[in-house]
Amino acid sequence: MELTPVLDERSGTPLYEQIYAYIRAEIVAGRIAPDAKLPSIRRLSVYLGLSRTPVELAYQQLLAEGYLTSKPRSGLFVAPLGQPAWSPRSPRQEPTAIEGAAAGASPGAASCNAPPVRLDFGYGHTDLEHFPFAKWRRLMNESFLASNRRLFRYGDLQGEPELRAEIAAYLHQVRGVRCTPEQIVVGAGTYHSLDLLCQLLKPAVSRIASEAAVNDGVRAAFEQHRFAMAPIPLASDGIETARLADTDAQAVYVTPSHQFPYGMVLSIGKRYELLNWAARTGGIVIENDYDGEFRYYGKPVPSLQGLDPSGERVVYVGTFSKALTPSFRISYLVLPAPLLARFCDGRHSYDQLASPILQHTLHLFMRSGGFERHMRKMRTLYEKKHGLLLHAVKTHLGSRATVIGDGSGLHILLRISGPLCEGQLIERAAAIGIRVYPVSTYELEAEKAPSSTVMLGFGGVASEQIDSGIAELSRVWPGMAK
Amino acid sequence: MELTPVLDERSGTPLYEQIYAYIRAEIVAGRIAPDAKLPSIRRLSVYLGLSRTPVELAYQQLLAEGYLTSKPRSGLFVAPLGQPAWSPRSPRQEPTAIEGAAAGASPGAASCNAPPVRLDFGYGHTDLEHFPFAKWRRLMNESFLASNRRLFRYGDLQGEPELRAEIAAYLHQVRGVRCTPEQIVVGAGTYHSLDLLCQLLKPAVSRIASEAAVNDGVRAAFEQHRFAMAPIPLASDGIETARLADTDAQAVYVTPSHQFPYGMVLSIGKRYELLNWAARTGGIVIENDYDGEFRYYGKPVPSLQGLDPSGERVVYVGTFSKALTPSFRISYLVLPAPLLARFCDGRHSYDQLASPILQHTLHLFMRSGGFERHMRKMRTLYEKKHGLLLHAVKTHLGSRATVIGDGSGLHILLRISGPLCEGQLIERAAAIGIRVYPVSTYELEAEKAPSSTVMLGFGGVASEQIDSGIAELSRVWPGMAK
Repeated sequence: MELTPVLDERSGTPLYEQIYAYIRAEIVAGRIAPDAKLPSIRRLSVYLGLSRTPVELAYQQLLAEGYLTSKPRSGLFVAPLGQPAWSPRSPRQEPTAIEGAAAGASPGAASCNAPPVRLDFGYGHTDLEHFPFAKWRRLMNESFLASNRRLFRYGDLQGEPELRAEIAAYLHQVRGVRCTPEQIVVGAGTYHSLDLLCQLLKPAVSRIASEAAVNDGVRAAFEQHRFAMAPIPLASDGIETARLADTDAQAVYVTPSHQFPYGMVLSIGKRYELLNWAARTGGIVIENDYDGEFRYYGKPVPSLQGLDPSGERVVYVGTFSKALTPSFRISYLVLPAPLLARFCDGRHSYDQLASPILQHTLHLFMRSGGFERHMRKMRTLYEKKHGLLLHAVKTHLGSRATVIGDGSGLHILLRISGPLCEGQLIERAAAIGIRVYPVSTYELEAEKAPSSTVMLGFGGVASEQIDSGIAELSRVWPGMAK
Repeated sequence: MELTPVLDERSGTPLYEQIYAYIRAEIVAGRIAPDAKLPSIRRLSVYLGLSRTPVELAYQQLLAEGYLTSKPRSGLFVAPLGQPAWSPRSPRQEPTAIEGAAAGASPGAASCNAPPVRLDFGYGHTDLEHFPFAKWRRLMNESFLASNRRLFRYGDLQGEPELRAEIAAYLHQVRGVRCTPEQIVVGAGTYHSLDLLCQLLKPAVSRIASEAAVNDGVRAAFEQHRFAMAPIPLASDGIETARLADTDAQAVYVTPSHQFPYGMVLSIGKRYELLNWAARTGGIVIENDYDGEFRYYGKPVPSLQGLDPSGERVVYVGTFSKALTPSFRISYLVLPAPLLARFCDGRHSYDQLASPILQHTLHLFMRSGGFERHMRKMRTLYEKKHGLLLHAVKTHLGSRATVIGDGSGLHILLRISGPLCEGQLIERAAAIGIRVYPVSTYELEAEKAPSSTVMLGFGGVASEQIDSGIAELSRVWPGMAK
């Protein structure tokens, strides 16, 4: 422990008194914890640039008044107090209001009096049972070596070049994206990547058209940069592209592989309409492919980016949060030439916030083939969970439930016919320790929000909990008849 | 490898031809590398949701035309081509223009024709020789366990609570900061923390007064949020606080422990003037204490935050980039009550971009006492390097050089009397493989930039290189007499 009081040698108060008063106040306020060991007289006097005398006098006074106790051959310790107001080494166990709100990926979670969460259909969760922990530890240890000096500095502004090469190869194979590593800018999560994208769009874009329902973080990023939004309705085959012409938007935001939150796939016809719109108007298509790797039937749906004949009109946004874990905080943009040129101009505020150590480890994981194997395993696993969930819904909820947006990704929506609104569905689930999530929060126009619809993520739920969880929900979600 | 062509079953072109054309095009363009192994017929057909026939026909055609070769019992491989246009698995070795510019912490580095850098007085570099690599690997492995499920999710929006408790205790002991863990918001680097701070300031602040010379990243963050800046001149004891009253600024940005870049310490009198100004006007003081832990003589200078009697007017900004390494990407804000309330309101766009794994590891490092020991070791080490640098400057440059901003932190400035301007000093150094950095870029008003002054960081330079490096510089930096 060190102590850093503000000392004023020119004040009328002697230094020892100032030191005494400081330490006493800190002990009383609990900012120095009971039983904490104080620095030795010698060390504190050297640290404060003083002679030993004032420190010694101050300690004597504190000892005399019972704030400190002396243990022979061991040193001076803060005496145990009745009730210290706050101890920095023992933080409160209950989360604060903020922490509680932040713990889930989405708002609308259980209220304060709800029982502990036993089963969480959180949308942002991934399966950890099958995460290659041992391999990652090994690769992380391989990265975390003194000889990799470069990784302990600020790192490449665009992201580590070796990782960008792996991402380009991966995107090409699995998502049909056509790009070079030079087009990729690594970020520390989709929010961070969108923050950069907003800055790059700003000179040419003032209004962004968007699917009428949008991830709240994405919307916040656009709004923070003061873009006007133009919501475009969604049909079963995706955004109503014909309505784009009614707006004066210079960019459009879409989630073509698996609309968030409704889960529809953008049809091939509409994909070409989007690209035609962009070619005709000089607009930009922002493709957020947040979980495009996971599809459970039919053919793979290649990215919009790969369809763009010019290679100039689509920005591809991707993340490792779904494929691996959000904990590495690694995302990326694939920039088309005009925006890449603007990035190279450097007239924006950007700092590489993804850790070079984790970037390097991810590159080793991809290069070793571990990522490809992991993805194959996870696709099979999530397909199984997806099937179990649909089966459980059919078995236990039957005609009461309509499934929306199945077939790919890591979540589905359930529309429950009956008397309960969205909030009630969520509350009744919370009352039995199950978390499900709202959908209405994602609608740009609140009045168009669907009624009685909730979101269930299945990525992080154990397979064996799915059936019983839905059975329990069926008992607290009565149908029309009851 | 997987392949994701766009296939159209309704087009007139048979599927096998579409697959054939896709793979051929990708091989020709080099997007599938020579010698890459193709997926088996079975696997690709399953992946594409097709029967085996079209895949088999496509492969036969590619084999016949020489794009593929077959290795018995091993599979099909891309034939070696003359000169593939681009291979995703072998990125170019030379950095791109952007990468080159980003490699240093600051602009103004060596030009393209300069010899390789032998000695880099980079300001952002820390000493890695004495970094506790083995201990960090051990703690990282301890964090990276399947049982720590929480660490593999999105994490606490404000930062891991245990880490915040450690930071609060550390700041109290070493910097005299008074705060609870609840006041701390972790970020992924100073840029990220300032981005949040700007959002929290926005409702009440339109103009920010600032030391006339400011870190370029800080300035970019303020400008991105469209704050007007009011530069305040610097005296030898810090910012001219009396001039604050001439502005209508509602906030002031300062680096009181060690002004960046000039290195002066804000006097105690001016500290109180700043706090009085804030109390009188309701203004906010932004204290960036980026390297306040390192001081080499005199008494410790406690933070401004700890001096604020109200506890309501100072925002403290800190980082682990100097104390440990920038690679962990961990910074923090200490928010006073009014801004904390605004943060809890949630009307801002913020995502926790610092990896929960690295946050947890840092918490273990601090809790174990390892951080305190590391800081004591580094203080001694940097003090030694600082002394060696000042000694070398005196020995080799003598009266030609004036040292500015010594006594703390990880850099000094050198004003070189003689005919060379800043750019020439930098270029001549670069010509012999030594990097030194400009100062003029940090001035808000370019015409006030000092002439013939350069910045030398010494944190990352090996002790034994300091003397010879300065001796070499003295030979290419002639004085007035020559």
